[in-house]
Amino acid sequence: MTRSSDGIPGFDFRAEGAAAVEWVARYLEGIGDRPVLAQVKPGDIRSRLPKSAPEQGEPFSAVLRDLDDIILPGVTHWQHPRFFSYFSVTASEPGILAELLAAALNQVAFIWRSSPASTELEGVTLAWLGELLGLPADWHGHIEDTASTSTLAALTVARHSTGRNVVLFSEHAHSSVEKAARILGLEARKLPTDDMFRLRTDAVARELERGDAAAVVGTVGTTSITSVDPISELAVLCEQAGTWLHVDAAYAGASWVCPEFRWSQAGVHQADSLVVNPHKWVFTPADCSALWTRRPEAFREAFTLVPEYLRTPDEADSLSDYGPALGRRFRSLKLWAVLRCYGREGLQERVREAVRLGELFESWVREEPGWEVCAPRHFSLVCFRREGSNDENMAILERVNRSGEIFITHTKLDGDVVLRLAIGNARTTEDDVARAWEALRTATS
Amino acid sequence: MTRSSDGIPGFDFRAEGAAAVEWVARYLEGIGDRPVLAQVKPGDIRSRLPKSAPEQGEPFSAVLRDLDDIILPGVTHWQHPRFFSYFSVTASEPGILAELLAAALNQVAFIWRSSPASTELEGVTLAWLGELLGLPADWHGHIEDTASTSTLAALTVARHSTGRNVVLFSEHAHSSVEKAARILGLEARKLPTDDMFRLRTDAVARELERGDAAAVVGTVGTTSITSVDPISELAVLCEQAGTWLHVDAAYAGASWVCPEFRWSQAGVHQADSLVVNPHKWVFTPADCSALWTRRPEAFREAFTLVPEYLRTPDEADSLSDYGPALGRRFRSLKLWAVLRCYGREGLQERVREAVRLGELFESWVREEPGWEVCAPRHFSLVCFRREGSNDENMAILERVNRSGEIFITHTKLDGDVVLRLAIGNARTTEDDVARAWEALRTATS
Repeated sequence: MTRSSDGIPGFDFRAEGAAAVEWVARYLEGIGDRPVLAQVKPGDIRSRLPKSAPEQGEPFSAVLRDLDDIILPGVTHWQHPRFFSYFSVTASEPGILAELLAAALNQVAFIWRSSPASTELEGVTLAWLGELLGLPADWHGHIEDTASTSTLAALTVARHSTGRNVVLFSEHAHSSVEKAARILGLEARKLPTDDMFRLRTDAVARELERGDAAAVVGTVGTTSITSVDPISELAVLCEQAGTWLHVDAAYAGASWVCPEFRWSQAGVHQADSLVVNPHKWVFTPADCSALWTRRPEAFREAFTLVPEYLRTPDEADSLSDYGPALGRRFRSLKLWAVLRCYGREGLQERVREAVRLGELFESWVREEPGWEVCAPRHFSLVCFRREGSNDENMAILERVNRSGEIFITHTKLDGDVVLRLAIGNARTTEDDVARAWEALRTATS
Repeated sequence: MTRSSDGIPGFDFRAEGAAAVEWVARYLEGIGDRPVLAQVKPGDIRSRLPKSAPEQGEPFSAVLRDLDDIILPGVTHWQHPRFFSYFSVTASEPGILAELLAAALNQVAFIWRSSPASTELEGVTLAWLGELLGLPADWHGHIEDTASTSTLAALTVARHSTGRNVVLFSEHAHSSVEKAARILGLEARKLPTDDMFRLRTDAVARELERGDAAAVVGTVGTTSITSVDPISELAVLCEQAGTWLHVDAAYAGASWVCPEFRWSQAGVHQADSLVVNPHKWVFTPADCSALWTRRPEAFREAFTLVPEYLRTPDEADSLSDYGPALGRRFRSLKLWAVLRCYGREGLQERVREAVRLGELFESWVREEPGWEVCAPRHFSLVCFRREGSNDENMAILERVNRSGEIFITHTKLDGDVVLRLAIGNARTTEDDVARAWEALRTATS
């Protein structure tokens, strides 16, 4: 029997590759007909899988078969046009194919020499994206897996460069800020917000007077309601206090590709670090979190550590000197493919369409008696509720999610359960949003 | 013009997918003819790329064209059969195709509900791999991106559960241990090794008496020379001292799929946590680092933090409660495909062949006057040098790497430069190892 190049009897890469591409094409074509939220109970998938790996190798077709029969029923379809939970994301087609290429190249870019192309393309794509988003041209950018890691990296540098141990952030900051602080052993101080759910600068100023704050984390587009912290004022306060300012724009930062959303960027140029997740609203498959800094030397001082077996005579930047991990796969390839295949205009078009659909849905909620909009809509997330109890709103949520027609999530504002409709998938059309509204109205009765 | 499902004019997924698969097939077929180490200078790749992203979208074929013309010359070919640096890795063909599927599914498994299948398959594949490697059946496994993150996670838990702030490890432990300690703000104490480059237990015992050690990190298969720390003795000492024992078997752990290498597993069953990287020697594309623990509750206590917008009524494990990141992509899919397509016997065969080739190369070095083997060869890494100065050995290293014929790295043992030939790529044959030896002998003259 013939062998593949990596020692598997009978593996025909071209044939299996064609089958895998066909599987993906059909999956994406038919995705709108599937229930969005997996309709399974905990343990269902596990119980259908063998207890052990096989003794002898199986054909790849067996993997594809079980993917359909066993795995798919347990998949919550993040690619579905009626996935409106958390923040809606898209693995676009060029991004998907670039992940195939990246897996084949299997680069591990811990130092420049171990992957010059991956190291340099990462710098170039982050410069491209920075320019698209209107960021300063001299910022240093690199890619982490998630915003959790980007924020952990930024707070590591903040502690290292200030020698202090406290992090300040709003009660609406993402949970990853508190998690990073806990991991690093920093004291996390959660501060109150104003009536627009923005971090209160008077509270920040009071805390900064204590002189122990390593970092303030400001958010542009909070997860619950996409509120925008007053970054300009925070930047002035941090500058005076010698405190690191990290900005979390994981979702909303992508909107800056359109000039009309750059109002939310005010003050960001004065930040010390910034995270935007292309795997959220830049149509890039997970994982791809972009971390920029105007103080790359502070990152290098915090993270550089070169053992003998990694010493080389090359005079070049190594991106593992900017974050926690040593091994780094070729994540920039998919971002490069996405930026090239959409172009600036293509990205702008999809972002504007998501915001337009958000406006439309918001107008339907406003016009309908018995429903209310609960927070200002800045981008493509709408926060709303049915007039009535929290239990009633949670029941609506569970009912629409169990129907499989849409998948949405909730948050709490001042004790009230609030429903969230997050638009952003590149495949979502006006019809999908109309179906969401219909499902919600039906679920009340 | 037609549009793809994600809004890109003229994008035909089946046609572009076929082109991408063909690109990969040709890349893998022809890889042995390329120089292993990228033959470029810092900045070469960057200088050939445009300064900005395009305004309008480009066809995917332009990405593939530039991948050939601009990116490939800057690629150090980790998939090359004569890549003998660091630890040799393989992205096998089923693993590559599974990454395509995972990108298309674009799962983000931060809680069970957001991806039941990904969450449960991760548990199942780690149980499969654990059984293949002879680990206890009741251990909890999950996947991190790299061993750096796995070790950082383990040390986070060690501090949280002991309330202490010191980490003990050998001078030959991987640099990621010291880096994790620095990130977490822990004190790193590097301890001496014996004449077999193993962590000295008398030194550990002395340090443990001080009562401030949160964790000891023992290594099975150190990066420089694959030495094996005395894990059994360390486990007894750690148990007595109430100190967490983390074992780093990132490379060598894969060898446990063969019973004849399980001698190096002695004591590991008593460890609190263990990292093995399937992206090293289990033929899985980067990134895939397996982290097991016998104390999952300690992980949950250290990492769990559930904000309102992630609360659900589901009673099921969420894997983000076991590590730093919230977002988690579908990494288990590629491990599942690899374990199924190789099977236990296929994995054993490739591991045994790599060790056989290591033995063979070692025998050639031993028999040749003017060369010496510098450390015991336990697995598939051979440490050797040319008799003579460090400068002479570094010159040989640079010469063979510049030739493009092979790519190897070095380390230092007691001040001596030592060359490392790391075998492990599934495509490496006896002829490739013979060519390496020929290149080294030629480079001396």
